[in-house]
Amino acid sequence: MEIKVVRKVLDVNETIAKQNRKMFAEKKIFVLNMMSSPGAGKTTVLEKTLAHIMPEIRSAVIVGDICTTNDADRLAKTGAPVVQVNTDEFGGDCHLAAHVIAKAAEGFDLDALDLLIVENVGNLVCPAEFDIGEDARAVVLSVTEGEDKPVKYPLMFRVCEAALLNKTDLLPHLDYDIKTTIENICQVNSDISVFEVSAKTEDGFGPWLDWLRRRVEQKP
Amino acid sequence: MEIKVVRKVLDVNETIAKQNRKMFAEKKIFVLNMMSSPGAGKTTVLEKTLAHIMPEIRSAVIVGDICTTNDADRLAKTGAPVVQVNTDEFGGDCHLAAHVIAKAAEGFDLDALDLLIVENVGNLVCPAEFDIGEDARAVVLSVTEGEDKPVKYPLMFRVCEAALLNKTDLLPHLDYDIKTTIENICQVNSDISVFEVSAKTEDGFGPWLDWLRRRVEQKP
Repeated sequence: MEIKVVRKVLDVNETIAKQNRKMFAEKKIFVLNMMSSPGAGKTTVLEKTLAHIMPEIRSAVIVGDICTTNDADRLAKTGAPVVQVNTDEFGGDCHLAAHVIAKAAEGFDLDALDLLIVENVGNLVCPAEFDIGEDARAVVLSVTEGEDKPVKYPLMFRVCEAALLNKTDLLPHLDYDIKTTIENICQVNSDISVFEVSAKTEDGFGPWLDWLRRRVEQKP
Repeated sequence: MEIKVVRKVLDVNETIAKQNRKMFAEKKIFVLNMMSSPGAGKTTVLEKTLAHIMPEIRSAVIVGDICTTNDADRLAKTGAPVVQVNTDEFGGDCHLAAHVIAKAAEGFDLDALDLLIVENVGNLVCPAEFDIGEDARAVVLSVTEGEDKPVKYPLMFRVCEAALLNKTDLLPHLDYDIKTTIENICQVNSDISVFEVSAKTEDGFGPWLDWLRRRVEQKP
């Protein structure tokens, strides 16, 4: 009974995700779904990323959080249009669903955008299960989270095209082997692009920004 | 429709949680549900905690992960009996539910236990919604996760009796204000006990171990 209904919820989500994908394709907007554990540094990565790619790439952000507008307030300072979704209005949801993205997208002038970044709810499990109509998914993993997360949360790494290993500035202070992490990522997804970055110092940002620019340009 | 069925799932969980609570009460076992984001350091906190409290406090652990037995392998070295639950057998569940705990508890000699610690799936959202029949809940928050997590994930901090701010050994290398974090925690739950600890160095472990020992002794 439970499984059947969950199946139905996912089917409805799939239908709306397809509509989103069609709408974004018509407007030639590249949509990136960014996911991570709480506190992995998604918002700081986005702040620094937007500072580099705007205004050439006309960007907007949908920010998902259970509560607060903290992240939207930070991202609005970049000059990008931002829509904050608080999932506590939807029962404290642990992920963003396709219908939430459809509603949030109404807040933008879609004709004036090349890129829409969705900063999902901080959660390494549930968001990976929900298609929101994106073109690509990226996961941010902080090096403070340990080497084994890719094999413990394989679905997240399986559905992503890019993985950012963030907070590399802390590496000298950790008992942590970044090679093992990358091996673990490749074990669950050998096609993923891995970027070692520090959102604080912007170390390693070049290859990540190149990847993002290329993906936006490739959008037909 | 969706909400109704979710309600029903939670009702069934509630019923089994009550049965668990009764069973653990009869056996005079104190049950602690430990939750956190992925990579906040639950397993290391537990390794160090068990080394201090055993064998005086006869302890066992149920470890929840979507995949792998990494954490169970680490915890088994403490000498405590450990049961690993892999939620991918339950559709990759993002939390431990009461029926899973009931099943896992069959793996222990309950007459030989004073304390059962449940290391929940790494997730700051969903586990907070599921009563598993525990006596108390504790959340581990790494200082690398930033100051705002308590207000962004308020339910987790509202349902917990204790919060461990872990990885304090990294404080000198972070732009982070622990006072602000504690204020944020108290804003959502003024009754919670906060412990500043480093599972790596065991700094600050005294008050946390005192709290745990007292709670185990208080179990009628």
